[in-house]
Amino acid sequence: MKAKTPKESLSIITEIVLPNDTNNLDNLMGGRLLHWMDIASAIAAHRHCKRIVVTASVNNVAFKNAIPQGSIVTLEAKVSRAFSSSIEVFVDVFVEDRNIAGKRTKANEAIFTFVAVDQLGNPIQVPEVKPETKEEIERYEGALRRRQLSLILAGKMKPDDATELKALFGS
Amino acid sequence: MKAKTPKESLSIITEIVLPNDTNNLDNLMGGRLLHWMDIASAIAAHRHCKRIVVTASVNNVAFKNAIPQGSIVTLEAKVSRAFSSSIEVFVDVFVEDRNIAGKRTKANEAIFTFVAVDQLGNPIQVPEVKPETKEEIERYEGALRRRQLSLILAGKMKPDDATELKALFGS
Amino acid sequence: MKAKTPKESLSIITEIVLPNDTNNLDNLMGGRLLHWMDIASAIAAHRHCKRIVVTASVNNVAFKNAIPQGSIVTLEAKVSRAFSSSIEVFVDVFVEDRNIAGKRTKANEAIFTFVAVDQLGNPIQVPEVKPETKEEIERYEGALRRRQLSLILAGKMKPDDATELKALFGS
Amino acid sequence: MKAKTPKESLSIITEIVLPNDTNNLDNLMGGRLLHWMDIASAIAAHRHCKRIVVTASVNNVAFKNAIPQGSIVTLEAKVSRAFSSSIEVFVDVFVEDRNIAGKRTKANEAIFTFVAVDQLGNPIQVPEVKPETKEEIERYEGALRRRQLSLILAGKMKPDDATELKALFGS
Amino acid sequence: MKAKTPKESLSIITEIVLPNDTNNLDNLMGGRLLHWMDIASAIAAHRHCKRIVVTASVNNVAFKNAIPQGSIVTLEAKVSRAFSSSIEVFVDVFVEDRNIAGKRTKANEAIFTFVAVDQLGNPIQVPEVKPETKEEIERYEGALRRRQLSLILAGKMKPDDATELKALFGS
Amino acid sequence: MKAKTPKESLSIITEIVLPNDTNNLDNLMGGRLLHWMDIASAIAAHRHCKRIVVTASVNNVAFKNAIPQGSIVTLEAKVSRAFSSSIEVFVDVFVEDRNIAGKRTKANEAIFTFVAVDQLGNPIQVPEVKPETKEEIERYEGALRRRQLSLILAGKMKPDDATELKALFGS
Repeated sequence: MKAKTPKESLSIITEIVLPNDTNNLDNLMGGRLLHWMDIASAIAAHRHCKRIVVTASVNNVAFKNAIPQGSIVTLEAKVSRAFSSSIEVFVDVFVEDRNIAGKRTKANEAIFTFVAVDQLGNPIQVPEVKPETKEEIERYEGALRRRQLSLILAGKMKPDDATELKALFGS
Repeated sequence: MKAKTPKESLSIITEIVLPNDTNNLDNLMGGRLLHWMDIASAIAAHRHCKRIVVTASVNNVAFKNAIPQGSIVTLEAKVSRAFSSSIEVFVDVFVEDRNIAGKRTKANEAIFTFVAVDQLGNPIQVPEVKPETKEEIERYEGALRRRQLSLILAGKMKPDDATELKALFGS
Repeated sequence: MKAKTPKESLSIITEIVLPNDTNNLDNLMGGRLLHWMDIASAIAAHRHCKRIVVTASVNNVAFKNAIPQGSIVTLEAKVSRAFSSSIEVFVDVFVEDRNIAGKRTKANEAIFTFVAVDQLGNPIQVPEVKPETKEEIERYEGALRRRQLSLILAGKMKPDDATELKALFGS
Repeated sequence: MKAKTPKESLSIITEIVLPNDTNNLDNLMGGRLLHWMDIASAIAAHRHCKRIVVTASVNNVAFKNAIPQGSIVTLEAKVSRAFSSSIEVFVDVFVEDRNIAGKRTKANEAIFTFVAVDQLGNPIQVPEVKPETKEEIERYEGALRRRQLSLILAGKMKPDDATELKALFGS
Repeated sequence: MKAKTPKESLSIITEIVLPNDTNNLDNLMGGRLLHWMDIASAIAAHRHCKRIVVTASVNNVAFKNAIPQGSIVTLEAKVSRAFSSSIEVFVDVFVEDRNIAGKRTKANEAIFTFVAVDQLGNPIQVPEVKPETKEEIERYEGALRRRQLSLILAGKMKPDDATELKALFGS
Repeated sequence: MKAKTPKESLSIITEIVLPNDTNNLDNLMGGRLLHWMDIASAIAAHRHCKRIVVTASVNNVAFKNAIPQGSIVTLEAKVSRAFSSSIEVFVDVFVEDRNIAGKRTKANEAIFTFVAVDQLGNPIQVPEVKPETKEEIERYEGALRRRQLSLILAGKMKPDDATELKALFGS
C-alpha cells in the first residue's frame, strides 16, 4: 500500500449556524459542533483508506470561542498519521465575521481517531501517511505521544513505557 | 451557596437509534452520540447551578462497542466536581439488548466540562459538589488530575506543577 | 410469564425546547410533545415485554400549560396495566423553571396503549402488571374503565355491558 | 363575526413516510403521525379564525392500520364546530397503495381542539361553524357530546348534567 | 394506457415556515422551498403514473417574494404534459397573510420534470395528459417549447430544429 | 469596490447521503440536492460581497446520474459573474465511488442567482468578478446570455433585443 499525503484526504464542510443549532445565548452548541467534526473527519479518514471507517475516539476538545447564530463555519479535516488499521485526523474549525471585513478566524481544533474495517466490522490495514508541510510534520510526530497517552488511559500500556510522554514531565 | 450532591443533577435521556443516526454498517455514528452526550451533560450542569451553561471541553472519549440501529440508548449524566465557575460532568451510556433477555450493558462514558455564565456570557460562581457513593468520590478525586492535564495542554500550567499527574508517571 | 412492576418499565427522556419545536408564541407545539410522549411510552412498553410494540391508541390528552422555548422537559413513562397483548402506559410531563429557584412542575399527562407483536406483526401475550404505589394502583384500576370506553367507542362493546362506566353516570 | 363553512378551513398536507419516521417493523410511528395531525389541524383552525391558535387537547386516537415506509400519506383537516374561543377540528388520514391500482384508503381519524388567542395568549372569540355536508353535520352535532365528556374528565361538569352523554348509556 | 387529466394528479402540501427554514432576514430560504417543490411535484408525477418517479430536471425558478417566518405555505402540483416516460409538473406556491384579512397570494411557480422508472431504474411508458382548464391547456402547449429548449441546452437538438422556439425570436 | 476572482468565493460543502435523503430506489432525492446547492452557492455569493444574500433564481438543472445512499457528495460553488446587485454562482457536484479505486466523477451542475441586500432587504451594489481560468471565463461570458433569457422569460426584455441569444438561433 502506497503512503499518502495529508492533502489527499483533505475534507471540507461548510455549515451555517441555524436557530436549532444554538443554545440559550444564541451561540452554536458544543454537541452540534462535535457532530460536524465527526462527519468531516470521517470523510477524511475514508478518503485516506477508501474503506468503511468507524469512530474510535475523540481527543480532548476545548471550546474557546462562542460562535453566534448565522455564522459560516468551515471545518477542514486532514489525516495526520496512521497506525496499522487506525487513522488519526485533525479537524480545524474556522469562523467568518459576517461584517464587511469578513475576517476568518480559527475557532477550534479537534483530533479524532478512526478504525478502518471490512463489511463485517473487522479491522483492516491502511496506507501510511507522508506529511509534507511543517504543521503536518508536527502533527504526525505528536500522534505517537497521543497514542501512548490513550493506551495508558485504556490500561493497555504502563506509564513507564510511555517514553514520549515521560519526557514531557521531565523524568 | 450550598454544596449539592451529584444525584441532584442526575439527567437521563433515552434515544432510539434511527436510520439517519447510523453509518454504513448500520451502527450509531460517533458524532451523533457525542451530540446526545453534550445535551445530557449540559442538562446535568444546568441542574447543578440553575444558570446558563456553555460547553467548555470534552475529555478523551473512546467508542468501544458498536451500537446497532434500533437500539435503545440511555445516557445518564451527573456532575462530578465543580471548580469556581466550571462544572465537570460524567455521562455514562447504556445500551439494551433487543431480545427477550434484554440485558443492559454499559457502552461508553465521557467527561464534559461546562462553564456557568450570566446573560452576557460572563462566568459566574457555582455551588460545590458533595460526592456520596464510592464511584462519585473516585470521580470527584480524579477531577483534579484531569484539570491539571487540561491546564498543561492549554499551556496554562507547567508540567512540573502538576503534582497529581507527575505521581502517575512515578516521578 | 412473571408479572412486572411499573417501576421496571420506567423510561425517562429529557428534551430542551428548541426554536423549531415552537409555535408563533414561542411555546412548545402540541404535536411535538405528542411525538415525544409516544417515544417515551413506547420505550416503557418495550421494557415491560421486551418485544416489538406498536402504538394502538392515545387517550384524551389536555395541554394546560404553555411550555416556553428553552425549557427543559422531562417525560416519565411507566406501564399501568396489561391486557393479553395490549399494554397501557402513563406518561407524566414535567417542566423546570429556568430561574435560580428551578421549581419543577407537572405540565401534562397522557395515556398511550401499545400492542406487542412478533416480527410478522401478529399480537403476542405480555406479562401482567403488579402495581406497587398508591398512584400505580389507582392507574391500574382506572385502566379497566378506560378499556370499556375505548371498546364502546370502537363499537366492540355495548354501553350496557360497560358496568364500570355506567357507574360513573350513576345508572 | 360571520359563520364559516368547514370547507373554508380545509387544510391538506401530504407526506412521504421516510426511514426516520418508521419503527422496527418499517411502519410509520404513531408519534410522527400525531405530530403531522397536529400541524394539519392547527392550520385548519387558523384558517377558520385567522388568529394564533394553540393546541388545547387531542381526543382518543386509534391506530388501526400499519402504514409502511415509502407510503404517501394525505391528511385532510376541517373545522367541525366552534365554542366561544375553542375550535374542534377533524383530521382524516388517507394512504395510497403504491402499486399500479393505487387505491386510496382511509387509515385514521383524529379530533383536535384548539384555542384562539391574541399575542399575549389570552383567549379570543372565533366565528361559528355552518356545516354543509351530511358528515359535517354529524360531526358538528357530536361535538357537543365530546365537549361534555371532556368537561367531566376535567372535573368541570357533573356527569348528571351531561344530558347528551347520559342518553348514550340509556339512563 | 388511458390519458389522465391534470386534476387527477393534483397534490397539495402545506408547510409552516419554521425558524430553521429561514435565512438571516427571517425569510424562507430558497433551497428549502425547492426541496418542498420537488416533493409536491414528485407526488403529483407518481399519482399520474403510479410508478416510481425520479427527478430529471427543474426549470428556471424565480423567487420574487420574500416569505416570512411563521407563514403558511401551500404548494399545489399538477402534471402538465407527458412525453413517453417523462412527466412535466407545474407547482404553484401560495402564501397566506397572517392577519385577520388572511389574503392568499401566489408567491412562486416552478416546473419540474420526472422520469417514470421500474424497480431497476429503467424508464417506462406513462399515460398521456388530457388538459381541461384554460391554464392547463396553455401549460400543456408550452411544454413542447420547454422540451425543445432543454434538448438544445443538453446538446441533443440543433437550435435550427426547434421550430417552436425559433418562432419566439421571430426568425 | 475592488473586483474579485471566482476563487475568492469558492465554497465547498461535503455531505454523506443518509437514509432520509433518498427516494424509493435508495438514491438521493432531487429536492435534497437542490437544497444543498442553494446553501453552497449562497455561501459563495456571501463570500463575494460580504453582505446578506437572498436566492433570486435557479437556472435549469438536470439530474443525470443517480447518487446512491452512503455516497460522499461534494459541492463546489464559485461566483461566475455579478451585475449591479445580482450575483451568479455555478455549483458543481461531485460523487466519490465507495470502492477501493475511489474515482470521483462529476454528477451535476447548477446555476443560482442571488441578490445582495441590506438589513431592510433593499438591493445593494456588489464587486465585479474577474475570471481567471478558461472555465471561469466561459462561464463569465455565458452569464450575459443567461441574463437575457431570464429577462425575456420574466417579460422584462423583448426577444429582439436579446442579441446574444438570437445569435444562438442563427438569426
